[in-house]
Amino acid sequence: MKKYDLSVLGIDCKLVFELLTRFIKNEVEKTGMNKVLLGLSGGVDSALVAFICKEALGAKNVLGVRMPYKTSSSESLEHAELVAKTCGIDYITCDITGAVEGFVNGEVSLGAKCANFFDRAKLDANFAMEKIVNRHSMGNIMARMRMLNLYHLSAASGAMVVGTSNKTELLLGYGTLHGDMACGINPVGDLYKRQLRELSAYMGVPRVVLAKKPSADLFPGQTDEGDLGFSYDELDYALYRIVDCRENPKLIVESGEVEARLAEFCVRRITSMQFKRQMPLIALLSFRTINQSFNYPRDWAL
Amino acid sequence: MKKYDLSVLGIDCKLVFELLTRFIKNEVEKTGMNKVLLGLSGGVDSALVAFICKEALGAKNVLGVRMPYKTSSSESLEHAELVAKTCGIDYITCDITGAVEGFVNGEVSLGAKCANFFDRAKLDANFAMEKIVNRHSMGNIMARMRMLNLYHLSAASGAMVVGTSNKTELLLGYGTLHGDMACGINPVGDLYKRQLRELSAYMGVPRVVLAKKPSADLFPGQTDEGDLGFSYDELDYALYRIVDCRENPKLIVESGEVEARLAEFCVRRITSMQFKRQMPLIALLSFRTINQSFNYPRDWAL
Repeated sequence: MKKYDLSVLGIDCKLVFELLTRFIKNEVEKTGMNKVLLGLSGGVDSALVAFICKEALGAKNVLGVRMPYKTSSSESLEHAELVAKTCGIDYITCDITGAVEGFVNGEVSLGAKCANFFDRAKLDANFAMEKIVNRHSMGNIMARMRMLNLYHLSAASGAMVVGTSNKTELLLGYGTLHGDMACGINPVGDLYKRQLRELSAYMGVPRVVLAKKPSADLFPGQTDEGDLGFSYDELDYALYRIVDCRENPKLIVESGEVEARLAEFCVRRITSMQFKRQMPLIALLSFRTINQSFNYPRDWAL
Repeated sequence: MKKYDLSVLGIDCKLVFELLTRFIKNEVEKTGMNKVLLGLSGGVDSALVAFICKEALGAKNVLGVRMPYKTSSSESLEHAELVAKTCGIDYITCDITGAVEGFVNGEVSLGAKCANFFDRAKLDANFAMEKIVNRHSMGNIMARMRMLNLYHLSAASGAMVVGTSNKTELLLGYGTLHGDMACGINPVGDLYKRQLRELSAYMGVPRVVLAKKPSADLFPGQTDEGDLGFSYDELDYALYRIVDCRENPKLIVESGEVEARLAEFCVRRITSMQFKRQMPLIALLSFRTINQSFNYPRDWAL
């Protein structure tokens, strides 16, 4: 790995902490709610969000939800419990195994006149019958089933779903649309992974959670950095230069400031994943099209 | 019902039809895809979208997906089949009953130190254990389970999920976030229900589908207009005046042009449901915050 000057990513932890607790308090109360809930994965992102929410709203107004699948590591569960206990918030555990298996084994049948189904010959003959499920699609199914659970609990309890996707993940589209990316409000979406870790250490997130390698825990040995092919330090640095500093990717590669392979990966992911950061595109027919010429913040009043 | 001049909602069907087929063709191809899929409910909205997509991409590049639950009416299933056959597209059937039951009966347990869980005393004692499921929450669970299925099929087949929410539903927030509102692209989101029906008749959507009362088919006898408390004609007219014509709701009530109860309902729903039409709010910390100072269309190139 090329040596990058990571000091440019430094943050004023005290100030950021104050801004984020005020953000949570203001934005939650503005909606008439006073409670939040979030998925506790045992990782550092959700740990930090739990700590911020507890400071903003008080421990009794924050609920952590552990949502293991049968293959989840017991370490993730233990770390999630440790986070909740350190933070002083309540938590519940909702096992998603039954729901995921109900989905994966669900009945699927071809339509009576299904002649083509996108050139069936090109597909595995059993595609539609057995819902071929690979590692990638299992990850999406699990993430979306967790979304179902959090939104169900949210509606039942009047608590807002708080998101935990960081800026690195959001820019790279390393997350599931309508899954872990779904939330009402996200206090850490403008923090790169390195910045998020710095703030987590400052706020007292347990050392064991801080120290472990980030992972989606879909299968043993999986790590984010293994999935992405670069370290978070490399990705954070390149994204910061390209996005925050608005630098031309070609020029910072030519000048030797950022490795070509890294810059190209970031540019490709930022642009190809842009759809995950946008509302659905609606065909424009009138003078007031939703999300185009009719586009207000959520606290807008008519 | 007060008599409203509904002629203001008239559309040029030939022109709108041409615009929408071009929209689907251009926007789908721009992403490198050439296929789409959509949920076929048996209602007019998804029927029209199927007809538009077939015109835009050819019948063999459009897949309809019927997703019944055990309580769904057989009429809905039959109408969905009729739409697919009239339109000439393939369809498959994915029963969501197993998945929904797996979710609803899933294991939930309170955390070891769960003392509060949002003032448990105020909640039903069995809340967390049994996931109290009422009609409203069942509707959301079903809508989201269908989203899971469509997005799973989309990833497996390389076909884009096309949305079917109309402008009336979107403005009133009469839909499930991350459920039926989830899609990559929506050709009918700028058409009020009345306009959508006019275009559907023009395009040859089967008469039986056009004639029946709109319903989410969650329980026998349910209708959209019963849920909302107003007819679509009333809602469309009031929304058109307030949103499209940018008229002051108070003034059009005072002048007697729109009934007070109707105008108030629309204003309340438009504003309170604004969050369903927005990406999650991210706390602003940098000069380039996603969805605030970093906000591009999906076909933007870096």
